[in-house]
Amino acid sequence: MKSCGLIVEYNPFHNGHFYHQESSRQKTDAEITVAVMSGSFLQRGEPAIIDKFARTKAALSHQVDVVLELPFIYAVQYADLFAHGAISILNALEVDYVCFGSESGDIQAFKDRYTHFKEHEEQFQSLLQENLKQGYSFPQASTEAYDAIGLRSKELDLGQPNNILGFSYVKAIQNLNSDIIPETIQRTKSGYHDETIDHDIASATSIRQEIVSTKKLTKKAEQALPSETVNQLSLYQQNSGSWHDWELYFPYLQLIVQSKSEQELREIHGMIEGIEYKLKQTVNRVTNFQQWMEQLKTKRYTWTRLQRMFVHLLTNTTKDEVEAYKGLTEPPYIRLLGMNEQGRAFINQKKKQIDIPIISNLQQGNHPLIKIEERATDAYYSVINPEQRTKLRKQELTGPIMIK
Amino acid sequence: MKSCGLIVEYNPFHNGHFYHQESSRQKTDAEITVAVMSGSFLQRGEPAIIDKFARTKAALSHQVDVVLELPFIYAVQYADLFAHGAISILNALEVDYVCFGSESGDIQAFKDRYTHFKEHEEQFQSLLQENLKQGYSFPQASTEAYDAIGLRSKELDLGQPNNILGFSYVKAIQNLNSDIIPETIQRTKSGYHDETIDHDIASATSIRQEIVSTKKLTKKAEQALPSETVNQLSLYQQNSGSWHDWELYFPYLQLIVQSKSEQELREIHGMIEGIEYKLKQTVNRVTNFQQWMEQLKTKRYTWTRLQRMFVHLLTNTTKDEVEAYKGLTEPPYIRLLGMNEQGRAFINQKKKQIDIPIISNLQQGNHPLIKIEERATDAYYSVINPEQRTKLRKQELTGPIMIK
Repeated sequence: MKSCGLIVEYNPFHNGHFYHQESSRQKTDAEITVAVMSGSFLQRGEPAIIDKFARTKAALSHQVDVVLELPFIYAVQYADLFAHGAISILNALEVDYVCFGSESGDIQAFKDRYTHFKEHEEQFQSLLQENLKQGYSFPQASTEAYDAIGLRSKELDLGQPNNILGFSYVKAIQNLNSDIIPETIQRTKSGYHDETIDHDIASATSIRQEIVSTKKLTKKAEQALPSETVNQLSLYQQNSGSWHDWELYFPYLQLIVQSKSEQELREIHGMIEGIEYKLKQTVNRVTNFQQWMEQLKTKRYTWTRLQRMFVHLLTNTTKDEVEAYKGLTEPPYIRLLGMNEQGRAFINQKKKQIDIPIISNLQQGNHPLIKIEERATDAYYSVINPEQRTKLRKQELTGPIMIK
Repeated sequence: MKSCGLIVEYNPFHNGHFYHQESSRQKTDAEITVAVMSGSFLQRGEPAIIDKFARTKAALSHQVDVVLELPFIYAVQYADLFAHGAISILNALEVDYVCFGSESGDIQAFKDRYTHFKEHEEQFQSLLQENLKQGYSFPQASTEAYDAIGLRSKELDLGQPNNILGFSYVKAIQNLNSDIIPETIQRTKSGYHDETIDHDIASATSIRQEIVSTKKLTKKAEQALPSETVNQLSLYQQNSGSWHDWELYFPYLQLIVQSKSEQELREIHGMIEGIEYKLKQTVNRVTNFQQWMEQLKTKRYTWTRLQRMFVHLLTNTTKDEVEAYKGLTEPPYIRLLGMNEQGRAFINQKKKQIDIPIISNLQQGNHPLIKIEERATDAYYSVINPEQRTKLRKQELTGPIMIK
């Protein structure tokens, strides 16, 4: 069975995602689509609007065959580390293709740029190290170094967010010596960051803006969402009282900053360049998350970096932990969130072929990454009512979602 | 000006407290009453029903002349340490008397028992050490040792909670070589732990039971409370949305236990005998504080010990911190919460006589105890709405309450 990997967040699963899986299938002629999805927290440092199982149900109901969880330790990170985590999972599962959406849509451009990158890698590495020494963050340091070696070309605009991610996937495939064949499809109509919905294919950002601000599933939003996503979003709101957004976590973040010493704050991943002092200075001056972010934001400390830092603060994720596990070339386990009948046949076959355990619940293992996963999950659910929290948490300990 | 110290919690200030200050004044012929009061959290490990300034206003409005804050590090502790902290403050301020309420009412009995204690101290200490080695908690170990040296006698029932506290005050005065003269008055009518209100003098426990369960200031409760307490209780409920009780803090405690490792939990003061494992085992099985306590409670791990541990967990108070400061024989500062005109004259006089700084806000000093005080305060206010939180927190940074 030819299989195609998709690297996703499904926050929430929308018509564009449906189009992505359909086109990827056509492009690669794959029978099976395998999504690796961020769990409770997302790449740009946000809590997912609804939980991972609800998002999995929506995806499986709309032709995605298998949904795997991208470990938390990789999910809330800059593009290269995010990509490394996702590709290492797909590689371990020995999928045939990865097909990603990009602004470019031309896989040859990505490959050419990768060749250019390899030719200038030595120069790139020394520039990167120099930039890091000067105090730049990793993404900033590497962007600067990319520019210096002339990687940004007319062929491929590496200023575009999905092109950047795509390039990271291509690099990760090479770094892991993987046999996965990369493919790309051009994203249609709406940009990644678009904030309004104008079409039946709209960005996840614009959909969230629309429904979080009104706290309602508007007609406009529904137009951009497949039926099961609409169903899952309204069920979640009904049962848990609210969709997730940062404001719900504000009192927790405030208490954590108040109760930890500067030294304790410094142990948290992403707590760099003295931001711990600024957190302490501002914590008692603000009354909501938005306000706090505005007080903290600088050119160097971007919105996304701050949000990621807050995720790691909320989940008590330390620098030591990320350092210890970020370099794993082989995942210690593959976590299955859900599958349909066809996906089940695929997974059963793989279980015979590969050595890495495929687990579906957090009790089936004792690796430190699982402990971190549990913490992230608990922190994510901390803002909903206790009864629903207990119920949703049980899902983490039972089998995967099965859709016929 | 002859002065009499009162060691109090005023949770809330009720008719019995008014009677206590009036009788203490008569008994000692003091012109000035100086209360040392627990701040945000109380000796038995509970958040105060309303904030320290509201309780100070009530006390000052009903003839208490000066209210000082008992540092957090001493407030949420077993009787000996609580007493040590309170007496060290009153001693530093050179008050003439301490007058405490007791079931006994006979100061000579306390003195006699102290003499007996001193005569058997060597034996007591070795028994105490032995009991501690066997894994008893400090209060349990000392109670056992008291019994073994025959301290519990007909003269003084040291099974009664206020007699125990009183004996701790008498001991602390001696241990600090203080000139303070201890006095006691007999508590009237209601016992410390009484849970129903039958008189206009009722226990604070029974008053809280009555109003917290109904979320209302009932007629019955009002009957036991002076006018300004009624006023402050209703103002607080109106502005902050709720009186404080443990259930409000439950989601925070849950997140803290989920996000800290066993090793991190072990650093917290009061986290002993492996209770950290039991916390981890139960955290996801419970949906409220009461339920959690019931699952954790054992004969050895009493309700009070568990509550104190939860206070230290919420405020991130470590074993190292308590060890570092619990033995101070002289307080690094005296914190003034409020005073009336007569109290002001007294404090102005003292400022000339003593070297220890008398401060009224948390910005007037940089001692680690002040940092701990700030953390406790922040944690206490974390459960009320953000606007009110910001407002109440500002009180900590401004001058004392003044009543004419």
